[in-house]
Amino acid sequence: MHAESDRARPAVVLLSGGLDSYTAAAIGRQQGFALHALTVRYGQQHARELEAAHEVARALGVAEHRELAVDLAAFGGSSLIGDGQIPKSGDATSATARHGVTIPSTYVPARNTVFLALALAWAEALGARDLIVGVNAVDYSGYPDCRPAFITAFERLAAVATKAGVEGDRFTVHAPLNELSKADIIRRGAALDLDYGLTHSCYDPTPEGRPCERCDSCLLRARGFREAGLRDPALAA
Amino acid sequence: MHAESDRARPAVVLLSGGLDSYTAAAIGRQQGFALHALTVRYGQQHARELEAAHEVARALGVAEHRELAVDLAAFGGSSLIGDGQIPKSGDATSATARHGVTIPSTYVPARNTVFLALALAWAEALGARDLIVGVNAVDYSGYPDCRPAFITAFERLAAVATKAGVEGDRFTVHAPLNELSKADIIRRGAALDLDYGLTHSCYDPTPEGRPCERCDSCLLRARGFREAGLRDPALAA
Repeated sequence: MHAESDRARPAVVLLSGGLDSYTAAAIGRQQGFALHALTVRYGQQHARELEAAHEVARALGVAEHRELAVDLAAFGGSSLIGDGQIPKSGDATSATARHGVTIPSTYVPARNTVFLALALAWAEALGARDLIVGVNAVDYSGYPDCRPAFITAFERLAAVATKAGVEGDRFTVHAPLNELSKADIIRRGAALDLDYGLTHSCYDPTPEGRPCERCDSCLLRARGFREAGLRDPALAA
Repeated sequence: MHAESDRARPAVVLLSGGLDSYTAAAIGRQQGFALHALTVRYGQQHARELEAAHEVARALGVAEHRELAVDLAAFGGSSLIGDGQIPKSGDATSATARHGVTIPSTYVPARNTVFLALALAWAEALGARDLIVGVNAVDYSGYPDCRPAFITAFERLAAVATKAGVEGDRFTVHAPLNELSKADIIRRGAALDLDYGLTHSCYDPTPEGRPCERCDSCLLRARGFREAGLRDPALAA
């Protein structure tokens, strides 16, 4: 007898250890995909996020989980990878505003472009035509590479960049959270019985790996749980 | 007194150690760009190519040269990174043909998408808005991610993927060799006094790092020198 994952259609899912990618992966699993999870070690300052990714992958029962290193921190350009202070609630903002656009200092240059490119490489090698990402453009940090326009442009690139695309196949980037608020994502995850206690969202955890509860990511997460009327199991009782 | 590179406009150039990227970089330098060279260690089976990249960077007098590792070989899917035999002249072809398209087994899934994504990440962190690549779609191995349609799709992606793009800046991917034959590229390089003896093109060098003279890349290079009426200085006399 073969496991379900031997027969299901494969998809590569980017798994960060956060709440969003966990939920997106679980939605993909529910849709019948066999999950090939990719976690990128790109120079995060803390290991907690990577541990969370491994726990989440295990909880999801993925067909395969890979961790790949690519040192984006060597390029700098973001407070998230050691270039400057991570902004906290009450700080003067470290976001810059130009042409009416405000993007915070935690933006990592071209991060999701690099991540999707790596997911595409693995997908093509694997024979998968589906990528799953947890980006969402409602309750998010304002990163450009979380918006639907980015996803569409990436699908167009994949069609001309790959052997599979040129041969007539199509790569689809599934972003099932795109239109959901953080509270809706959490409600969806709760309905899927996900254990958000495994996940980690904080940009700047304590040395013990606890969330700071003051960075942008912690604040978005807290508001999401509050609006969903649920308690965050990752926070101390 | 400041060096020229302190004042010139920065550009990130992908430098492989081959003849094409060397020539593209030299054209960029002639156009006044300060070159920030990026060499990606992606799982090539031989170190000769990386050594060549360092020698070429030195010969070009780049402002900066970085080598970044990203293990595409872990994904497989290409004879160039250890998955199957590299095809040689006289072999039955290991290219596959579908819908009238033939792409050789040396194609590495999404390689140039990953490379350009990394170049974009560095460029944005650096404040550069120009990328330079040595792809060409005339005398080439038939890889989809060497064609003008790929370059255009990547520029469109960069416009929506980045903070700089959203703020109104534009990233340009310069592919100055795109319309040139291999012989034209070599003539152009000769006019720029480039030392092609530093470069390495072979997909499957001998243990001593000498070109095999039978792979697709060696054959394209040999034909280019022949048509340009020049001797390849990388070959033994």
